[in-house]
Amino acid sequence: METSNNKRVTLPVEVGIDKVVQEMINKWGADAIRNSDGTELSKELMDMAVKVYTTYLTIRNDQAFARGHMDQLQMQYLMSKHNIALSNVLEIHILDGYFNRQFEIDKEHDWKRYWEVVDRTTGEVVDNKLWEFNEVKKTVIINGAKKWHRYTVSFLARQIWDTTHMYNHLTNNWTTPQHVAYDAFHKETREHIFSYLENWLRDNPSVDVVRFTTFFYHFTIAYNDKAKEKYVDWFGYSASVSPEAIDEFERVRGYKLRAEDFVDEGYYNSPFRIPSKNFLDWMDFIQQFVTENARKLVDLCHENGKEAMMFLGDNWIGTEPYGAYFKNIGLDAVVGSVGSGATLRMIADIPHVKYTEGRFLPYFFPDTFHEGGNPTKEAVENWVQARRAILRNPVDRMGYGGYLSLALKFPDFVDKVAEITEEFREIHNRIQGTKPYTPKFKVAILNAWGKLRSWQTNMVAHALWYKKIYSYVGVIECLSGMPVDVEFISFEDIKKKGISSDIGVIINAGDAGTAWSGGNYWLDEQVTGKIREWVYNGGGFIGIGEPTAYLHQGRYFQLADVLGVDREVGFTLSYTRHDEEFQGKHFILEDKEKDIDFGEGMSDIYRVLDNATILSMNRGDINLSVNEFGRGRAVYISGLPYTPENVRILYRAIYWSASKEKEIYNWYTSNNNTECSAYPEAGNAAIINNSNQVQNTTIYVDKDNYKDIELKPYEIKWMTI
Amino acid sequence: METSNNKRVTLPVEVGIDKVVQEMINKWGADAIRNSDGTELSKELMDMAVKVYTTYLTIRNDQAFARGHMDQLQMQYLMSKHNIALSNVLEIHILDGYFNRQFEIDKEHDWKRYWEVVDRTTGEVVDNKLWEFNEVKKTVIINGAKKWHRYTVSFLARQIWDTTHMYNHLTNNWTTPQHVAYDAFHKETREHIFSYLENWLRDNPSVDVVRFTTFFYHFTIAYNDKAKEKYVDWFGYSASVSPEAIDEFERVRGYKLRAEDFVDEGYYNSPFRIPSKNFLDWMDFIQQFVTENARKLVDLCHENGKEAMMFLGDNWIGTEPYGAYFKNIGLDAVVGSVGSGATLRMIADIPHVKYTEGRFLPYFFPDTFHEGGNPTKEAVENWVQARRAILRNPVDRMGYGGYLSLALKFPDFVDKVAEITEEFREIHNRIQGTKPYTPKFKVAILNAWGKLRSWQTNMVAHALWYKKIYSYVGVIECLSGMPVDVEFISFEDIKKKGISSDIGVIINAGDAGTAWSGGNYWLDEQVTGKIREWVYNGGGFIGIGEPTAYLHQGRYFQLADVLGVDREVGFTLSYTRHDEEFQGKHFILEDKEKDIDFGEGMSDIYRVLDNATILSMNRGDINLSVNEFGRGRAVYISGLPYTPENVRILYRAIYWSASKEKEIYNWYTSNNNTECSAYPEAGNAAIINNSNQVQNTTIYVDKDNYKDIELKPYEIKWMTI
Repeated sequence: METSNNKRVTLPVEVGIDKVVQEMINKWGADAIRNSDGTELSKELMDMAVKVYTTYLTIRNDQAFARGHMDQLQMQYLMSKHNIALSNVLEIHILDGYFNRQFEIDKEHDWKRYWEVVDRTTGEVVDNKLWEFNEVKKTVIINGAKKWHRYTVSFLARQIWDTTHMYNHLTNNWTTPQHVAYDAFHKETREHIFSYLENWLRDNPSVDVVRFTTFFYHFTIAYNDKAKEKYVDWFGYSASVSPEAIDEFERVRGYKLRAEDFVDEGYYNSPFRIPSKNFLDWMDFIQQFVTENARKLVDLCHENGKEAMMFLGDNWIGTEPYGAYFKNIGLDAVVGSVGSGATLRMIADIPHVKYTEGRFLPYFFPDTFHEGGNPTKEAVENWVQARRAILRNPVDRMGYGGYLSLALKFPDFVDKVAEITEEFREIHNRIQGTKPYTPKFKVAILNAWGKLRSWQTNMVAHALWYKKIYSYVGVIECLSGMPVDVEFISFEDIKKKGISSDIGVIINAGDAGTAWSGGNYWLDEQVTGKIREWVYNGGGFIGIGEPTAYLHQGRYFQLADVLGVDREVGFTLSYTRHDEEFQGKHFILEDKEKDIDFGEGMSDIYRVLDNATILSMNRGDINLSVNEFGRGRAVYISGLPYTPENVRILYRAIYWSASKEKEIYNWYTSNNNTECSAYPEAGNAAIINNSNQVQNTTIYVDKDNYKDIELKPYEIKWMTI
Repeated sequence: METSNNKRVTLPVEVGIDKVVQEMINKWGADAIRNSDGTELSKELMDMAVKVYTTYLTIRNDQAFARGHMDQLQMQYLMSKHNIALSNVLEIHILDGYFNRQFEIDKEHDWKRYWEVVDRTTGEVVDNKLWEFNEVKKTVIINGAKKWHRYTVSFLARQIWDTTHMYNHLTNNWTTPQHVAYDAFHKETREHIFSYLENWLRDNPSVDVVRFTTFFYHFTIAYNDKAKEKYVDWFGYSASVSPEAIDEFERVRGYKLRAEDFVDEGYYNSPFRIPSKNFLDWMDFIQQFVTENARKLVDLCHENGKEAMMFLGDNWIGTEPYGAYFKNIGLDAVVGSVGSGATLRMIADIPHVKYTEGRFLPYFFPDTFHEGGNPTKEAVENWVQARRAILRNPVDRMGYGGYLSLALKFPDFVDKVAEITEEFREIHNRIQGTKPYTPKFKVAILNAWGKLRSWQTNMVAHALWYKKIYSYVGVIECLSGMPVDVEFISFEDIKKKGISSDIGVIINAGDAGTAWSGGNYWLDEQVTGKIREWVYNGGGFIGIGEPTAYLHQGRYFQLADVLGVDREVGFTLSYTRHDEEFQGKHFILEDKEKDIDFGEGMSDIYRVLDNATILSMNRGDINLSVNEFGRGRAVYISGLPYTPENVRILYRAIYWSASKEKEIYNWYTSNNNTECSAYPEAGNAAIINNSNQVQNTTIYVDKDNYKDIELKPYEIKWMTI
């Protein structure tokens, strides 16, 4: 009984509450229902006149097969703890510190071929003849170890518990038997995966959308010996490995990867690392494998008249939506979790799909939906933070996840979501698929990853808050809802193609040495030269945290001459500081009403050029400064967590550095808590209040045309233009 | 009219107030008088029955000679600003940003031989054929510069204003004509210096002590184009240079130094830099030259029946009192400014002299001695901070500096100094030259400089407060008055000689990459190996700030295995932190009464070993933790400014890491604001109150023998033992 108003919304459902489900479909205007991992759809539910999504777990839905093919389970490359040699014989318990229900040492393959013992004092690999693996004791014994050196063993482990299943077990107290995941790299497994899907598609005619969660390889998660998370890397490739894949890589790429290429000193190629050539080659290899075979699954769906949707999470490794091979998968849709504006854009901006869908928070889980919990507040805050990004580029659909029965206990929440879904549809009706107004210049985020990690810069786990990163993640969060076009570019892009003429401002934000700041890319004369030239000729450069940082030839910030500031590492303390805060007015600070929140900030930033202007200092350290370089301009900011005020600081810094101050009044609002998105082609403009207070703001069509309006808490107001 | 009570004190005097001087001699118990730079002693003053010191300015007291030998003035190596090449021709104004009354470009020597043009983008020296110096425009023109590279010019400049003279002019508003300083490296100048002193000694029979201020080369000071300090390095050798010396160095050492060896990327071999071999060779060369020729001056004094005293400051370069050649000078005494406990020890611990003297604060200058000023408070605080160090190893004499007439305007101050001088003599009477009680083990400070920079670690300018260093200087300040024997050792010491068996605790404190932390010394397997072995066998290791830091093979702290903690640089954010503060009692914190002041602290310290115990955390970052390694122990502290509470934290950390907890009660006080120094041979013990409040404390002779006492503000109480 879908009405004409039912669209763009997906409802998570459970069996046993069919009647309520129907009510909820009407209430939220849903046109699709879905199950979650661990819940089932009944025939009755599937027969309701809405689109039906079903979660499909490619590599573990046939546990009978899995148990019969334990030699084809997924693996991970692991590194042992660091061990100090107290004598010339050192015995290392290689699994020490890992969770023995998750991992089992791989004893089936030639460990001398795939493992490595490394002297971490020198970085040298220990000669294979000097160590032995004791299968009974599960130890590696090094003979001829150098006393007081530290050693690690890198080895392959079979994953005897599927990562997501384990997570849910340990987090949500599941009690089902331990599921294992098979590796599609094995031909037999791969063929089984295809035939199993074929059968499943035939057996599930009511399903309209196969929601793959996801394809073949889970991101890296390892648990410790206390059954707690040891490390988690949402971008990690450590679980995409097997001896067979490594051998195949050698065959097609012409060289053999080392264990170290995966283990990476224990950093496991974290996205904060500047990626090595070998790791990039491996990613490319896995991406080709994953996309080729995912394509076959998608084709099967299509052949059976169903859509194929990918969940951007769990086993998403190799499918990177901004990567070179993603389009080959031929997906109809991608759905992903929306934790913020940046994650909204991460989904909404995905190319080569018919539609995108955001799964909004909170999950209908007991951590929020318990007595005393306030899911309504969470839902509103999540919605409002995402809304400003939606106004820049909307996901096509929205939905929620978890147990509907839990949500139903909070009528207040149910009503609020009805409002939100209505507001979401209204946005689509007003925008009509047109592009919002943006200035003519683009803003580029520059780092070692570029486009591949669009809207994923400086992130550790997906959208989680970390003390060390929130002052950088704030940058993309601010940008996610800002009226500017954003592009993610890499140092290699600049080296190969230069800086595209439509870019007006480049932002480099991150800690020294990370892929986000750029590390030794800043020693590359091509990189520094092309950026200097571009800024000198009028470009804008914004550095946040430790931009352009690499200690070399008297400078820590290699573009200190552009930025006007540098960071003290101790070697220039003998230079007397004469830094003083500028006392005049500056364009960037025109809307400033209170002290700026620089988040963690950055200590010991000082001025190296007399002409640089310091806009904010604290205890002698610069937090915000500007400098001119030729006809171009640069801004330094010590950190930029997401706040309404910081959106404004960055917005103004962008216009100032691009030397486009005069144009800022196009669709501008005077009040920091409000923003405007205009859709000239659709003849509409939205003014939003991001705060929980009534706000008065002047809305500018341009410098000379404006009017005052009042917005209720969190209100969105539309005006015809 | 010296009485028997007049001793150990030197009074600064001025002409014209002779009668008052005599009163002051009696009041403060002075047995010596002195003039200062810029003041003279009258015959009347010199005839008073006390010892007479006269300031002697070796390299500038004959300005007539100086003006006649402008080709023999002192020089400095300077580096131009960084300049970006906008085209293939780059013109650099090399003196730009320097003070033109201080420096003049040296045009007399072959600039192609002594200067260097460096491409700072690549680090390469520009071929001499590609640049020219324009003597008229004072510019270097590079032809064939690489566009967008940055360039600097390193060049020699004559110092046309003596550094100290210039400083006093610009700081104290002197108006005398600009003095210049001649360079003893020139034979003619050197011989003039000797003969001038000979004459002077003959002409000044009333002088008892020639107070050299100092010998030949001033520490580095350069002013900027606004006549303000540009950089100042109390340890700097940039003004010890001349083409003649560089040529001689090449002759005797067999290789030519580059301009870069002095300019050092613009860091000018700051003591925070790990010294290069070439710079160490240069220091050695200059030290030999300075000490050999200073010896000749000292001999002349002795031949004339006078003592030779050196002021540890101004032109002290090459005389390093803890260096290999210092003893060769044959000095009778060293006098130095006492800004703290550490600077007191810097003077008091000097070997190879008959006596040492501390010049206490405040100077009798108008900056303190003005209406509304409180010189008494400054004097007391300076005295009390120094007193705890004096009790460990007293300077033999004390004195003040500046204009006595100014001090006389503050009778309160005059009375207080009378008390201080009396207390100082009492200390000497009680100690009787004996060694205070210390535990059997020594504490070693480990860095790249070792003994040479005893009590000078992590210092920028002499005893000045800098935000970046006070959390490290606090370590030696705490130690300066602590009942432990302190030794300063270098990485080379450890490599060559191992760790001396009398060392119980090693402290490594500093920022990563600096000489104080050690930089790439931590890649040396000898260094890490010998320290690991030593700790494993029972040694104590205390790391402060970024100890053992060098990013290598998966660890930032190379002794993370010993310390139990490491610093997050961004690559291990994927590791889940389970760090929690220890809730039990710990020996180190037993006297803790309030939150510990970690100064600037250190962000992002986390636990890498499960066994490490976290004693203090803030926002997830560890500030204080302990770990056991074999039979040894390690303590990590994020920063340790000098406070009475931190003295106690460090003291307890030392005893804990040395595994000597039981022995701490030997001459112990229960109250953090009080300390005890015992002199078993002399049969005395001092208990001091370092605070301006009444304090009650239990004084322990040992664990089982103690009594309670009360101390008045700042009181010192003696007990017979």
